[in-house]
Amino acid sequence: MTLDTLPALDRRTALVSAFTAPKGFGDQTLRERRADAIELLGGIPDPAVLPARELAEATARVLSQPGLPALQYSRTEGIPALREWIAAREGVPVSRIVVTNGGFHGLALAIQTTVERGDLVAVDNPIFPLFLRGLELSAGRTLPVRVGAHGIDIEELSGLLKGGARPAALYTVPDFHNPTQGSLPLEGRRELVRLAEHYGFVVFADNPYRELRFSGRAPKEEPFNHSERVIHINTFTKTLGPGLRLGWLVLPESLTPDIVALRSRQDSHSSTFVQAVVAELLTQDPGLFDRTLDRARATYASRARTLAEAIDREAPGAFDVEVPGGGLFLWPRLRDASVDADRLAADASAEGVEYQRGAFFPSGPGTDAARHLRLAFGDTSQDQLTEAAARLGRALQRQRA
Amino acid sequence: MTLDTLPALDRRTALVSAFTAPKGFGDQTLRERRADAIELLGGIPDPAVLPARELAEATARVLSQPGLPALQYSRTEGIPALREWIAAREGVPVSRIVVTNGGFHGLALAIQTTVERGDLVAVDNPIFPLFLRGLELSAGRTLPVRVGAHGIDIEELSGLLKGGARPAALYTVPDFHNPTQGSLPLEGRRELVRLAEHYGFVVFADNPYRELRFSGRAPKEEPFNHSERVIHINTFTKTLGPGLRLGWLVLPESLTPDIVALRSRQDSHSSTFVQAVVAELLTQDPGLFDRTLDRARATYASRARTLAEAIDREAPGAFDVEVPGGGLFLWPRLRDASVDADRLAADASAEGVEYQRGAFFPSGPGTDAARHLRLAFGDTSQDQLTEAAARLGRALQRQRA
Repeated sequence: MTLDTLPALDRRTALVSAFTAPKGFGDQTLRERRADAIELLGGIPDPAVLPARELAEATARVLSQPGLPALQYSRTEGIPALREWIAAREGVPVSRIVVTNGGFHGLALAIQTTVERGDLVAVDNPIFPLFLRGLELSAGRTLPVRVGAHGIDIEELSGLLKGGARPAALYTVPDFHNPTQGSLPLEGRRELVRLAEHYGFVVFADNPYRELRFSGRAPKEEPFNHSERVIHINTFTKTLGPGLRLGWLVLPESLTPDIVALRSRQDSHSSTFVQAVVAELLTQDPGLFDRTLDRARATYASRARTLAEAIDREAPGAFDVEVPGGGLFLWPRLRDASVDADRLAADASAEGVEYQRGAFFPSGPGTDAARHLRLAFGDTSQDQLTEAAARLGRALQRQRA
Repeated sequence: MTLDTLPALDRRTALVSAFTAPKGFGDQTLRERRADAIELLGGIPDPAVLPARELAEATARVLSQPGLPALQYSRTEGIPALREWIAAREGVPVSRIVVTNGGFHGLALAIQTTVERGDLVAVDNPIFPLFLRGLELSAGRTLPVRVGAHGIDIEELSGLLKGGARPAALYTVPDFHNPTQGSLPLEGRRELVRLAEHYGFVVFADNPYRELRFSGRAPKEEPFNHSERVIHINTFTKTLGPGLRLGWLVLPESLTPDIVALRSRQDSHSSTFVQAVVAELLTQDPGLFDRTLDRARATYASRARTLAEAIDREAPGAFDVEVPGGGLFLWPRLRDASVDADRLAADASAEGVEYQRGAFFPSGPGTDAARHLRLAFGDTSQDQLTEAAARLGRALQRQRA
């Protein structure tokens, strides 16, 4: 038989057969757009605030080291210099840090290690939808927990647990929640950890936006770094660039061997080259990372304000818009119940502005997410954000006219 | 409860629970050695033949591109420039190429996509032992197939299939086999493909040493790139450096969507940064890759000869040593049945030379692998190889004295 006549392989593992095609968020078939469209789709950092020159310089240095350790095999956990820098920043022992290929990879490792096939997992509602895609690795069932202005609703969670729900794990974005933008306060974090320890579930605390705080400082205490029941997931994606594919897990000591055993069977270790370049960048000039963050925070804070003000100006009274405390998204809510949000998204696309509909984000019933728009402002200039607001205003006019 | 008093998490998935601790090959507890030990342990390319300066220059160029595409998200399949270069070299359409984080990652993806839990997988005997570790992702059972001087024994395989064996997949290293050094001839490849198509199993053709051919040229026809039943696995590990973690799969069209669906749930995509740097390296100076290979081939051929000759000199008549046609290993066989191979390895370690015992490589009974030594020469200088042979000779003397 030849390539042309042989039937396609009918052999597919149960693992792969359980995967579903993306609907809504991530559905490429929705991505038909005008050539001049302004895309407010993804949480993408602005190239201008990424330390490109410094990365090139760090690369030149690591590639001139004798024996070229940056081009050789390294340990599954990550290279010492990078793990030590991360551990110091997180305030945990180095033994609890495993380097990953970005935050999503960290989530996938956590899921595969701790969620048995068919297990129940408590999740944000609304939720970062790609978590649900990752959860298909364990064919997990979901228990939606409401997310309010201050992150996941600990009271609702507590009630569900008292009522008998027994999730294996819980997924939440604690800082500058995606998409709703609230942050879980210190006391809520403590209580979440207490519940996890009492009921024996694992918290997946997914924290990619933590460093993008527009003003003030995070509380010094981070309960997520001090419990045997929390996997704290972070990444350089939003700070040094998604294309590096570099992140890390803060793990309970007891979980590190399982995560390492899994990775050593899946992809051995994260690129030594990328790790060495980033470690060199972070350690050679110890102030560089925070200076990079300061520039990023100022840029994103200013863009958030510009977009919020432009929306108020171009669509007066149409939205409740709040400038978030950090991160890369606005989450405005349509005030007028007679506006059709799906039609608005279609009209906006026709006007030349693309965003994620709020309807893509619920993990269960009971939210008003469908009345929201998720607008990403990270990699869009002030001028383009103003123009995007004008286009959104015109799209809204189509329904009101 | 606090971190100190809380019991370790008892929740482990079946996936992780099935993993076994490494025995023999890869067992770190065996790695106690003299400070001045010469390590002939791993198939590691020599830093001197890796294009470090050119990689640094390519990095500088990609990090000065407008919009910094190298630091942004990219498609799960890989970036177009790299996939196109690989597809042209493999002689297949771009749609059949998926970029991976190295060869082992490609194997892991192949296993998870096509081997159901508990499935039977035909494997090289002796075998590259880390494949068996990867196979634990699907808790696969093994059907050992003898590997001879010309790669996997197609006749034995054919007999097993005719006898009723129904593997889901078959794993082999077709070029410069690890550890036995033979290569599967063209007619054997054709017959293997015919068997796979007839009996409906998938061939995992793992080909990391293909480009390290010491003389002559590979046959132009590569049957492994032209069947719906073969996943052809390759990597830049042995040619541009293991630390990059960059490889690729040549996939049957019908398997590409499953592999992409799995990866999009595990680690999204390989580092855009690494892909962009390597694509720039390969395309900016189209002759560079082959010049790099020529230098590597000359280096490794010379080291293979030096080590083989030194062994003959330092331990006359003790081994059958054959200089391989390519790759990074010698596989000498002890001629004297009275020599204890395990004791030899321990004595060699005491003398200051470390290698992998042949006993680590069988996947089943019926081989003489335990009478062999796997000696890696890739990253060891001529002088050190000569010294290593002298130490091995002294270790052998301990038993003969």
